[in-house]
Amino acid sequence: MPLQRPKIRLFVEAVLDSETNLELDHDQCHYLLRVMRLGPGDEVALFNGRDGEWRAEVLESGRRACRLALRERLLAQPPAGDLGLLFAPLKRARLEIMVEKATELGVTRLQPVLTRYTAVRRLNLPRLAAHAREAAEQCGRLEVPALAEPMALDEVLAAWPVARPLYWCDERGGGRPAAAVFAAASSPADLLIGPEGGFAPDEAARLEALAAAVAVDLGPRLLRADTAGVVVLGLWQALNLAKK
Amino acid sequence: MPLQRPKIRLFVEAVLDSETNLELDHDQCHYLLRVMRLGPGDEVALFNGRDGEWRAEVLESGRRACRLALRERLLAQPPAGDLGLLFAPLKRARLEIMVEKATELGVTRLQPVLTRYTAVRRLNLPRLAAHAREAAEQCGRLEVPALAEPMALDEVLAAWPVARPLYWCDERGGGRPAAAVFAAASSPADLLIGPEGGFAPDEAARLEALAAAVAVDLGPRLLRADTAGVVVLGLWQALNLAKK
Repeated sequence: MPLQRPKIRLFVEAVLDSETNLELDHDQCHYLLRVMRLGPGDEVALFNGRDGEWRAEVLESGRRACRLALRERLLAQPPAGDLGLLFAPLKRARLEIMVEKATELGVTRLQPVLTRYTAVRRLNLPRLAAHAREAAEQCGRLEVPALAEPMALDEVLAAWPVARPLYWCDERGGGRPAAAVFAAASSPADLLIGPEGGFAPDEAARLEALAAAVAVDLGPRLLRADTAGVVVLGLWQALNLAKK
Repeated sequence: MPLQRPKIRLFVEAVLDSETNLELDHDQCHYLLRVMRLGPGDEVALFNGRDGEWRAEVLESGRRACRLALRERLLAQPPAGDLGLLFAPLKRARLEIMVEKATELGVTRLQPVLTRYTAVRRLNLPRLAAHAREAAEQCGRLEVPALAEPMALDEVLAAWPVARPLYWCDERGGGRPAAAVFAAASSPADLLIGPEGGFAPDEAARLEALAAAVAVDLGPRLLRADTAGVVVLGLWQALNLAKK
């Protein structure tokens, strides 16, 4: 019978093993004790991206501190995936939602890229990382996607590894249908969506000239960038699920 | 050479033909004249879900009024699709985003359904309808999805037409992979996603017993309801695009 996983899950940095007692930081204490109203004897699941998922029990809960004891490993750490999403920054609310959904959909690396028509140039990376962490806690993943510093698209493409496929959404309709392309694809790979204004002509030309880059088409309707990000990842995962 | 479509698009209720001059309502005047800063001689595209897309020219713009003259039909009205999304109401922000994205992804009917575990029971339908209309204007569609009054899931299932497929996302992993199922499916059809808490056991049993209902699986991660809605529609459309 599979072990019952506690519904409340927390990502922690600490090593997780049977010897561990750990002290949560202030924010996580607040969440467990005040928001979720847990107390001594209650259980949570912990994961750190390396040591699987563990059942932990609240030992003590003071005003500002919360100590947990690890009880048993519920799940082994699965092999790390390798699926990146490259995206131009968007306005805050849309970006946060896209990061949340990309995390639910199993992305392992989030790479902001600055393009010619990217209107938003500044990102609050710690805040975005917190969104990714919370989404991982909520959706049952055992790792949190890495969030990279923004890079210029030109630089990213100039250093692109020859052997790593880069599937880019060509909103001009230049590619083959994404479902047909992804049905024959597998990770490691990266998916690239442009900004709201699309790629500049020279950026599209550069992508077309890149041997590792494959244009894909998401259909006749103009999708917002955040919609395209969710759809392309959902499609990738659904087609990979169907192959099993 | 295809006709250039004005980027600013408005959904209107009026008949659109070459004889038409029309007066916009207060909100649309405000949007065109104050937000987008159009004036006499500027162009917009109009659609009403029946008569295709038309180029219109601003004739007069007073403080609170805006008169337009129709110039030419840019696109014929495409055949109406028939793809419904049945969803349990969510908190406002998530629901609005899901409606926006469902519209971009070509849904033609939005049917809120109340299930046992639906936490949100009240909906602001006019506001949701406005979100759908704005998303249609923005994504280039020529129709706005119909938004129905909420119904109890039990009632919806009791009256379900035998010949109309209902694909429901079974978060317990009970169905075949959605991509495999959808690859052999086509509209007319409906897609059903449950609330954040999933379907109650008796609801799942009722769906399993319904001849027209087909369970599909969206993968091992627990998707939020709004994520599932976007993914299932995006997948449906991408697989249909790949068939052409």
